[in-house]
Amino acid sequence: MPRRARVVVDVMLKPEILDPQGQAVAAALPKLGFGGVVEVRQGKRFELTLDGEVTEDQLAQIRRIAETLLANPVIEDFAVRLEEPA
Amino acid sequence: MPRRARVVVDVMLKPEILDPQGQAVAAALPKLGFGGVVEVRQGKRFELTLDGEVTEDQLAQIRRIAETLLANPVIEDFAVRLEEPA
Repeated sequence: MPRRARVVVDVMLKPEILDPQGQAVAAALPKLGFGGVVEVRQGKRFELTLDGEVTEDQLAQIRRIAETLLANPVIEDFAVRLEEPA
Repeated sequence: MPRRARVVVDVMLKPEILDPQGQAVAAALPKLGFGGVVEVRQGKRFELTLDGEVTEDQLAQIRRIAETLLANPVIEDFAVRLEEPA
């Protein structure tokens, strides 16, 4: 059976970019009785399933995919990481 | 200076729920010259910044927040984790 690997790409707005969705969540929290949260930021998480082992080359390609297709590097930061199999 | 902690909540569609956004990304990848990706799923990532140390009580509360406010448990799974400080 072929091994499958999972690569996760997290995309978040850069810290200096306003995040109205996150602010809406943060504003709702006290109404739910939870006061300890200072800030909420909302972003995207992509799970990519790959066939077989992930090579350094593939990770570099996924970084290019992330910056062209998954994130807008003008306003967003992204992080690519290989998820350890459970 | 007060310590701050970060809790990450990942929200993904359940595996049995169709994910057209992820499918659109997966369909675009071969056109970008990347053929090794079998599946793409798109979800949400929330970063919650908390004042001070995070207790077990607070984590339990964040799980309740996640299932009432951040995720729709009918169609989405979520995971709550404390992010280690860098």
